[in-house]
Amino acid sequence: DYAKIDHHRSLRNGLPEVIYAAGKSPEHTSEIFARMAATGIDVLATRADEATAAAVLAATPTAKYHQQARAITLRQSPPAAPHGHVAVLCAGTSDLPAAEEAAITAELFGAKVTRLYDVGVAGIHRLLAQRDILATANAVIVCAGMEGALPSVVGGLVAVPVIAVPTSVGYGASFSGAAALLGMLNSCSPNVCVVNIDNGFGAAYTATMIARASHR
Amino acid sequence: DYAKIDHHRSLRNGLPEVIYAAGKSPEHTSEIFARMAATGIDVLATRADEATAAAVLAATPTAKYHQQARAITLRQSPPAAPHGHVAVLCAGTSDLPAAEEAAITAELFGAKVTRLYDVGVAGIHRLLAQRDILATANAVIVCAGMEGALPSVVGGLVAVPVIAVPTSVGYGASFSGAAALLGMLNSCSPNVCVVNIDNGFGAAYTATMIARASHR
Amino acid sequence: DYAKIDHHRSLRNGLPEVIYAAGKSPEHTSEIFARMAATGIDVLATRADEATAAAVLAATPTAKYHQQARAITLRQSPPAAPHGHVAVLCAGTSDLPAAEEAAITAELFGAKVTRLYDVGVAGIHRLLAQRDILATANAVIVCAGMEGALPSVVGGLVAVPVIAVPTSVGYGASFSGAAALLGMLNSCSPNVCVVNIDNGFGAAYTATMIARASHR
Amino acid sequence: DYAKIDHHRSLRNGLPEVIYAAGKSPEHTSEIFARMAATGIDVLATRADEATAAAVLAATPTAKYHQQARAITLRQSPPAAPHGHVAVLCAGTSDLPAAEEAAITAELFGAKVTRLYDVGVAGIHRLLAQRDILATANAVIVCAGMEGALPSVVGGLVAVPVIAVPTSVGYGASFSGAAALLGMLNSCSPNVCVVNIDNGFGAAYTATMIARASHR
Amino acid sequence: DYAKIDHHRSLRNGLPEVIYAAGKSPEHTSEIFARMAATGIDVLATRADEATAAAVLAATPTAKYHQQARAITLRQSPPAAPHGHVAVLCAGTSDLPAAEEAAITAELFGAKVTRLYDVGVAGIHRLLAQRDILATANAVIVCAGMEGALPSVVGGLVAVPVIAVPTSVGYGASFSGAAALLGMLNSCSPNVCVVNIDNGFGAAYTATMIARASHR
Amino acid sequence: DYAKIDHHRSLRNGLPEVIYAAGKSPEHTSEIFARMAATGIDVLATRADEATAAAVLAATPTAKYHQQARAITLRQSPPAAPHGHVAVLCAGTSDLPAAEEAAITAELFGAKVTRLYDVGVAGIHRLLAQRDILATANAVIVCAGMEGALPSVVGGLVAVPVIAVPTSVGYGASFSGAAALLGMLNSCSPNVCVVNIDNGFGAAYTATMIARASHR
Amino acid sequence: DYAKIDHHRSLRNGLPEVIYAAGKSPEHTSEIFARMAATGIDVLATRADEATAAAVLAATPTAKYHQQARAITLRQSPPAAPHGHVAVLCAGTSDLPAAEEAAITAELFGAKVTRLYDVGVAGIHRLLAQRDILATANAVIVCAGMEGALPSVVGGLVAVPVIAVPTSVGYGASFSGAAALLGMLNSCSPNVCVVNIDNGFGAAYTATMIARASHR
Amino acid sequence: DYAKIDHHRSLRNGLPEVIYAAGKSPEHTSEIFARMAATGIDVLATRADEATAAAVLAATPTAKYHQQARAITLRQSPPAAPHGHVAVLCAGTSDLPAAEEAAITAELFGAKVTRLYDVGVAGIHRLLAQRDILATANAVIVCAGMEGALPSVVGGLVAVPVIAVPTSVGYGASFSGAAALLGMLNSCSPNVCVVNIDNGFGAAYTATMIARASHR
Ligand SMILES: Nc1ncnc2c1ncn2[C@@H]1O[C@H](COP(=O)(O)O)[C@@H](O)[C@H]1O
Ligand SMILES: Nc1ncnc2c1ncn2[C@@H]1O[C@H](COP(=O)(O)O)[C@@H](O)[C@H]1O
Ligand SMILES: Nc1ncnc2c1ncn2[C@@H]1O[C@H](COP(=O)(O)O)[C@@H](O)[C@H]1O
Ligand SMILES: Nc1ncnc2c1ncn2[C@@H]1O[C@H](COP(=O)(O)O)[C@@H](O)[C@H]1O
Ligand SMILES: [Mg+2]
Ligand SMILES: [Mg+2]
Ligand SMILES: [Mg+2]
Ligand SMILES: [Mg+2]
Ligand SMILES: [Mg+2]
Ligand SMILES: [Mg+2]
Ligand SMILES: [Mg+2]
Ligand SMILES: [Mg+2]
Repeated sequence: DYAKIDHHRSLRNGLPEVIYAAGKSPEHTSEIFARMAATGIDVLATRADEATAAAVLAATPTAKYHQQARAITLRQSPPAAPHGHVAVLCAGTSDLPAAEEAAITAELFGAKVTRLYDVGVAGIHRLLAQRDILATANAVIVCAGMEGALPSVVGGLVAVPVIAVPTSVGYGASFSGAAALLGMLNSCSPNVCVVNIDNGFGAAYTATMIARASHR
Repeated sequence: DYAKIDHHRSLRNGLPEVIYAAGKSPEHTSEIFARMAATGIDVLATRADEATAAAVLAATPTAKYHQQARAITLRQSPPAAPHGHVAVLCAGTSDLPAAEEAAITAELFGAKVTRLYDVGVAGIHRLLAQRDILATANAVIVCAGMEGALPSVVGGLVAVPVIAVPTSVGYGASFSGAAALLGMLNSCSPNVCVVNIDNGFGAAYTATMIARASHR
Repeated sequence: DYAKIDHHRSLRNGLPEVIYAAGKSPEHTSEIFARMAATGIDVLATRADEATAAAVLAATPTAKYHQQARAITLRQSPPAAPHGHVAVLCAGTSDLPAAEEAAITAELFGAKVTRLYDVGVAGIHRLLAQRDILATANAVIVCAGMEGALPSVVGGLVAVPVIAVPTSVGYGASFSGAAALLGMLNSCSPNVCVVNIDNGFGAAYTATMIARASHR
Repeated sequence: DYAKIDHHRSLRNGLPEVIYAAGKSPEHTSEIFARMAATGIDVLATRADEATAAAVLAATPTAKYHQQARAITLRQSPPAAPHGHVAVLCAGTSDLPAAEEAAITAELFGAKVTRLYDVGVAGIHRLLAQRDILATANAVIVCAGMEGALPSVVGGLVAVPVIAVPTSVGYGASFSGAAALLGMLNSCSPNVCVVNIDNGFGAAYTATMIARASHR
Repeated sequence: DYAKIDHHRSLRNGLPEVIYAAGKSPEHTSEIFARMAATGIDVLATRADEATAAAVLAATPTAKYHQQARAITLRQSPPAAPHGHVAVLCAGTSDLPAAEEAAITAELFGAKVTRLYDVGVAGIHRLLAQRDILATANAVIVCAGMEGALPSVVGGLVAVPVIAVPTSVGYGASFSGAAALLGMLNSCSPNVCVVNIDNGFGAAYTATMIARASHR
Repeated sequence: DYAKIDHHRSLRNGLPEVIYAAGKSPEHTSEIFARMAATGIDVLATRADEATAAAVLAATPTAKYHQQARAITLRQSPPAAPHGHVAVLCAGTSDLPAAEEAAITAELFGAKVTRLYDVGVAGIHRLLAQRDILATANAVIVCAGMEGALPSVVGGLVAVPVIAVPTSVGYGASFSGAAALLGMLNSCSPNVCVVNIDNGFGAAYTATMIARASHR
Repeated sequence: DYAKIDHHRSLRNGLPEVIYAAGKSPEHTSEIFARMAATGIDVLATRADEATAAAVLAATPTAKYHQQARAITLRQSPPAAPHGHVAVLCAGTSDLPAAEEAAITAELFGAKVTRLYDVGVAGIHRLLAQRDILATANAVIVCAGMEGALPSVVGGLVAVPVIAVPTSVGYGASFSGAAALLGMLNSCSPNVCVVNIDNGFGAAYTATMIARASHR
Repeated sequence: DYAKIDHHRSLRNGLPEVIYAAGKSPEHTSEIFARMAATGIDVLATRADEATAAAVLAATPTAKYHQQARAITLRQSPPAAPHGHVAVLCAGTSDLPAAEEAAITAELFGAKVTRLYDVGVAGIHRLLAQRDILATANAVIVCAGMEGALPSVVGGLVAVPVIAVPTSVGYGASFSGAAALLGMLNSCSPNVCVVNIDNGFGAAYTATMIARASHR
C-alpha cells in the first residue's frame, strides 16, 4: 500500500491534496489521479513529464496537460467568479516553468491571475510600467533566478505579501538557485517571504489562501 | 546624511518604516526614533540592546522597551479593535526572542496575538491540545530552531498561511539556524513560507498584512 | 586480487559481510556473491541494478532480486522464529527505495519487520493511527526526505531507539538529502540517531542488532 | 509560561525529560530543576556552566555538579544493580567534555559505564589492548574530533551498536566538528550510527536504551 | 625582516603600495607608514583600529585618521585637479564602513568622489532621483549587504563599469556577506564585476584606474 | 509574450542587449536574433549549441557561429578602427571556451583583442615572456580554473584593471569552479575584480567599456 | 596555438610534463602525445577514456593503455634499477582507479611499487598483516573514499611520509569525496599530507620525488 | 587518566610525540611536558599561549618559548650537523605564525631552515630573486592565506616536494583559510601536497622526514 491519499485535507486546509509526480512512475500517478478524480474534486498533478501526462490523459481524458508548467489539471467544480487576485511576475524568460506552475495552480484553486513576465531589474522601467496593475493584486508571486533581486524591488512597491520563488536559472555561482534563495531570504523588504527553489506550486497555494481571505 | 527615512512607506506598503537598530549607534537610533515619533505615528525599533534602549527612552520617555523581544515600541495611534488574529508558536523555551519579536510587532501593527510557546514536536500532544485556538487564527507564525519540524506539523492542521521563522537555537550541525531554515524550505505542507533566521519581525509584518486583509 | 572478503566478520560482528554492488562490475559482484554463497551463509548484495541482478541470478539461480530495494538476497540458513521486531516507517511514497532496502535487510538478518509507509507529518493523524503497533517494536527505522521531520515525532512516541535515514527525495534546497540529514541530526528527541543519506542497509544492520539483543 | 515540562515522558519513552541549560538563565534552570526534583525522580541538566551550577545547587543542595561534563545530576531513585554495560571511548584528551557528558548520563540512567580515553587511531595499539573489555559492552559510544576515524575501527571490532559522537575538537578544516561528523556518517562499519556534534547526552540516551533492553 | 615594501609598484601598477593594517601590530604599521612617508609619496593604511591610528599619528603627525572608513591617509603630493569621477553608492546606513573606505581611497588616489548613501532597492524612488548625477560618473562603486540587489539595478541605469562590493551587513542567512556576494556574481547586468566582501579599498583601486583612464 | 527585448539598452548602457541562449529553444533564439538583426545593429547570442546555431543561421544566413566560444555573431556596423585594446589570457588549454567567449564578445563590441593562451603559473616563464604586449592593453581578462592563481600574478604586472573569470575546469575540490572563484575574490592584487564562473561574456562587456573609455 | 608544452620541466622539476587528457579532444591529446614522444622521453597521459586511448595508440603504436588507471604510458628510457620504493594502499575495491593511476605513474617514473588493496579500517587485521612490507617503503600512498580513515592509521605505523588521496567513492554525505578529503586534512598523524580528490597522479609524482631522494 | 603518552612513537615514526596544547589547561600541558622532558628527549609543545608558556617554563626552566610561533621547545639532544635543508616561505607578513611554527619545528627536529618571508605573487620579482637558494632545499614549505597562489608558482620552480600550508589570513570570502586550502588542493603543479589550515607543525614534520631521507 504505497500511498495514503489525504482525503480530509480540503476540510483541514481548505484546499485539496495535490499529486507530486516527480518521484512516481507514470502508472502510479495515473492511478492516484483517477482515484482522486472519482471523488468529484478538482485534481492537480505537478512535476509531470510527457510520459506521465500521456498515462494520466489515457486514463482520465478530461484532464489537461500544461507543458511549460509541467502540470496536469482536471477541473470538475462548477464555474465561479474568481476568489481574489494573484499577480505572477518573473524576471526573465527562463523563469517561465516556475511562473507557469504558480499561475496554473492559482487558477485551478480559483484565483484571478495576472502574468507579468520578463520584468527583471536590469531594465527597471519594464517593472515600473506595471505599477498600476500590481496595485490591484491581493498577493504577488515573484519568480527569479540568478541574483534574485526582483522580490525586494516589488516588495517596496506593493502593500500586500510577496511570495518569492527562487528559480534554478543561472550557472556557475548561482549554485542551482541557492544564490537567488539566499538573496530573497535576506530581502530588505519586510513583506517578502520565501518558498523552496522552483516551488511555484507552494507559492501559489499560499498566495491563493491570502487572496481568498482578502476577497471574503 | 547617513539615513534617508522612507516616510512614504505607509502609503506604499500600508505599514510604516521600522528602525533596524543592530548596525547603528545608540545615538543614531535614538535620533531617528525621535524624528519618526515627531510625525505622530507608531514607532518600532528592533534588535535594540540595553544601551540603545536607554538612549531611546531618555529622548522619548513614552517609548517602551521589551527586553526579551529586544524591541522598543511607541504607540501614538488611538486605541482600536484588533485587525485580525495572529497566532505565534514556538518549539522550545530558547526560541522566545524570535517569538516575542514577532508578537510585539504584530500587536503594534494592530493584530490580536495569541502566544503558544514550548509546543515542540517531541511531545506532540502539547500542540494537539491547542488545535481549537489555532483554528481561529488568520495567520500563524511558527518559530523553531534545531530541526525546525514544527511548521510542517502546524501547516497540516490549519487552513491559513504559516510563516516559518527558523531560529539560531541549537549547536553543532544546527549551523546557527541553517538546519532549521533548510527543513522549513522543504516543508511537505504547502501552506508554509519562510523568512530569514531569527526574523520574527518580518514574519509578523507579513502575517499582519494577511490578518488585516482577512479581517476586512 | 581486487577483493579481500572478510569471512571472520560474523564471528567479530555477529552479522556477515555484505556486498556493496554500486562500485563493482556485474561480473565482480556475481563472482563475490557466488564465493560467499559457497560457504553456506545467507548472502546480501545492496545497490544492485538490473544488469547486476541478471549476472548474479545467472550464476546463483536460488538468489532473489528485490527491485524496489535494489537488493539481492540468498537465504540458506534454516527457517527460524524471528529475532525481535523492527518497524520501518517512511514519510512519502518516494522514500520507498531506502525503506525497502532497510526492510529486506532486517528480514534477511532474522527480524520480524512491520512496514508503515506514507505517514509523513503534514497529515499527522496517519501516524497517530499506528501508535499501537509502533509500541511493540524493539527498534524503529524512519526514512524521510525533504525536511526530515518524521523521526522527531516518532522519537517522542516510542521507548526504543529510532534510527533515522535521511533520503535524497526532494528538490532545490533539499540539496539531495542534506536538509533532511541536518534536521535529523538536530532532532529534539534524544532517542534518535542517524545514518548516511539513503543508507537503509546500515539502519537495518544496527536495528537488527538492537532487536536481537532485546529479544534474547 | 515559558516552559511546559513533559512529565509523561518517562511513561512514553522509558526515560525522564532532561533539562538543556544552554539557552536558559540560571534562575530558569534552577527553578525547573527544583520543580522536577520535587516529583521524586532522578534529574539531569546538561550544558550547565558554573553560574548555573551555583544557582541549582543553592536551591537543590543534594544535586551534584560534574564540571568536565558540564552536567548537574540529582539521584533520588534507590540504589540498584546496573541495567547493562556501556563503554565510552574517546580519541584524545580534548574530547573529554563530550565523553564525560555521555558517561555521566549513562550512569544516572542506570548503566554500568567503562571509560576508555585517549585511544585514537594514530597509535592503534592503544585501542587493540582494550579488545577484551570492549567485547563485554552492550553498546559502545565513541567520541572523536578531527578526522573522526575511531568509530569505524571500533565498529569492526565489536558485535554491538556503536553510537558515534563527533566532537568540535580541531581547527581549520575541521570546521568545528563537521569533518568528524561527515567521516562518521560515511563509516564503512555498518553498525555505526551518529548523533549531533558534541551530543554526548543523546548518545548515552540511546546507548542506555540498548543496554537496558539487552540486559533484560 | 618581516616586510618587503614593494617600492616599484607605482611604476608597475600606476598606484602606490598600500598598508593592510589588519594583521599587523600598531608598531609595525606605524613603522612601515613612516618609512613610506619618508619617500615623499601619498600613504594609505586600511583596516586601522583606534590603537593603530594613535601609533601612526604619534610617529607621523601630519597623517589623518578617518574613523568610519578605518583608514589613515597622508597626502604629500601637490594639489591637482581630480582625475575622473567615481560615484560611491550604498544600500543602507550599515554599509557605511565599506563605502567610506572606498570613498577615502578614491579621493586619495586623485578622483572626484560623489557619495550617494542609503538608496537601497526597497524604496527604489530614492535611487531613481539620483539618475542625473549617476550619469556623469566614469565608474560606479556599489556597496550592499543582505540580498545585494542594488548593483544590478544600478548596472541597468549607467553606461560605465559598476564595481560591486558585497558587505557583511545582515544576519542569519546573509552568512556574513556570502548571500550578497553570490547575488552580485549572478547579476543580470553585464557591466557589474565584483570584489571581496567589505573590500571597499579594492573597488576604489580599480574604479580609480578606470576613471583616470577615461579622463585622459 | 515571453520576451521583452530591451531596445533602449544601447542608449542607457552604450552597448546593445545580448541574447543568452542557454535557457531558450532554438526557435525562440532564432526569432529573437532575427528581430534584433532587423533593427540594423550588431547582434550577439551566447551559450548557443549546435542546434541553436543551425536554427539561427537558417533564419539569418549572414550570422557566424564560433564553435569553441559557443557564440553567434552578426556584424552589421560599418568597419571601424578598434576602440581600445583588450588582452585575453588563459591558464590552460581547457579554459578556451571561456576565453574565446570573451575574445569574440570584445571583438564584436569594437576592441582590438590579443590572445595569450596556456600561460598558467606552474611555468611562470611563459607569462613573463609576454610582459611587453601585456603592457599595451587597456584592460586584461584572465580566465583560469583549478586554483585560479593567474589573475593575481598578472595583476602585479600591469597598470590597468584585470577582470578575472574563474572557469569550471578541474575536478574534485575544484567544485566546478568555486575554488578558482574564491581564489580570485581573495586576490592580493588590488586591481583584480571578478565575474561569475565561465562568464567570459560579462568580463568582455566590462573590459570593452574600460578600453573604449581609455581610448577616447 | 592551443598548447605550450613545457619541455624544460624535466630540467626544473626533475620529472617531465604530463598530459591531462580530461579537457582535450582525442585528436589534441594524440597530437601532443606524439610531439612529446618524438623528443625521446617517457610520456604519460592521465584521465584518458577509450576514445582517447584509441587515437593515441593509432598515432603512437608503442604506447600502452591501462584501462583501470585511465592512463596511457610510453616507456622509451633504457631499463634501470628502480629508484626507491613506493607502497600504494587502498581501502576498498572501488578505490582502484585512483590507486592504479598512482601505481602506474610511480612505476613509469622509476619507482618500485607495492600494491596493498582492500585493507580498509573496518577489518583492521587486514592492514596489520602487512606491517612488514609497509616498513620497507620510502613513501606511502593511501587512497580511500567514504570516511577516509585509513591514512591516519597507516601514518601511525610508518616512519615515512604518507600521501593521502581522498576518492570520490561513496554516496550521500560523502559529497563526492569531500568527506574523505576533510577527514584526511584533519589527520591526527602528522606525517600525512593530502592531494586533490582522486588525484592519484599528483600523489605518485610527489611520492616518487621522495622515494628517489631517499634512495640516493 | 586523561593522557596516554605514546613513548614508542620515535621508534615507529622516527620522530617523537609532540604536545598539542590548544585543548589543554596550562597545568596539564606543563605536567605532560615535564614527564616527557624527564625521559631525556627533545620536547615540543605547539599552540601554547602566554599562560601555558609561563606554566611550562616554571616547571621546566630550560625550555624556551617562541612567541610568534606559539611553540615551546626543549633541546636535550647533543649538538649535531643538520639533517637536510628545509626552506620555509610565506606570502605576507600576516602568515608569520604558521611559518614560524614550521621553522621552529623543523629546526628542533634537526633540519637546516632557510626563511623566505613576504614573497607573495603580487610582486613576483621578490620570489624570482630567491631562485638560487630555493634550488638547494630538500623540501619546501609554503604558507599563504587569501588566494593561496604561491605554492603553485614555487612548485613550478623546484625539483623537490612542496608542502603547502593554507593560513587563516584574510577576510570575507577567504572563509578563514578555506579559499587558500581549495586553491592549494587544485594546484596545477603536481609536486604540491597540502596540510590543514595553519598547520605549520604538520608541514614541518613531513618536510623534515623528506629532508632527512634525502640527506642520508
Ligand atoms: N511541486 C511540488 N513541490 C512541493 N510539494 C508538492 C508539489 N506538488 C505537490 N506537493 C505536495 O506533495 C504532497 C504529496 O506528496 P506524495 O505523498 O509524495 O505524493 C501533496 O500533498 C502536496 O502538498
Ligand atoms: N548500501 C550500503 N551502504 C553502505 N555500506 C554498505 C552498503 N552495502 C554494503 N555495505 C558495506 O560495504 C562493505 C563492502 O565494501 P567493499 O569491500 O567495497 O565491497 C560491506 O562490509 C558492508 O558493510
Ligand atoms: N553568457 C552570458 N552570461 C551572463 N549573462 C548573459 C550572457 N549572455 C547574455 N547575457 C545577459 O542576459 C540578458 C538577456 O537575458 P534574457 O532576458 O533571459 O534573454 C542580456 O541582456 C545579457 O546582458
Ligand atoms: N590527473 C591529473 N590531475 C592533476 N593534474 C594533472 C593530471 N595529469 C596531468 N596533470 C598536470 O596538468 C598539466 C598539463 O595541463 P594542460 O596544460 O591543461 O595539459 C601537467 O603539467 C600536469 O602537471
Ligand atoms: Mg530578458
Ligand atoms: Mg521544552
Ligand atoms: Mg503522500
Ligand atoms: Mg593523546
Ligand atoms: Mg535605510
Ligand atoms: Mg598546459
Ligand atoms: Mg572490501
Ligand atoms: Mg607584503
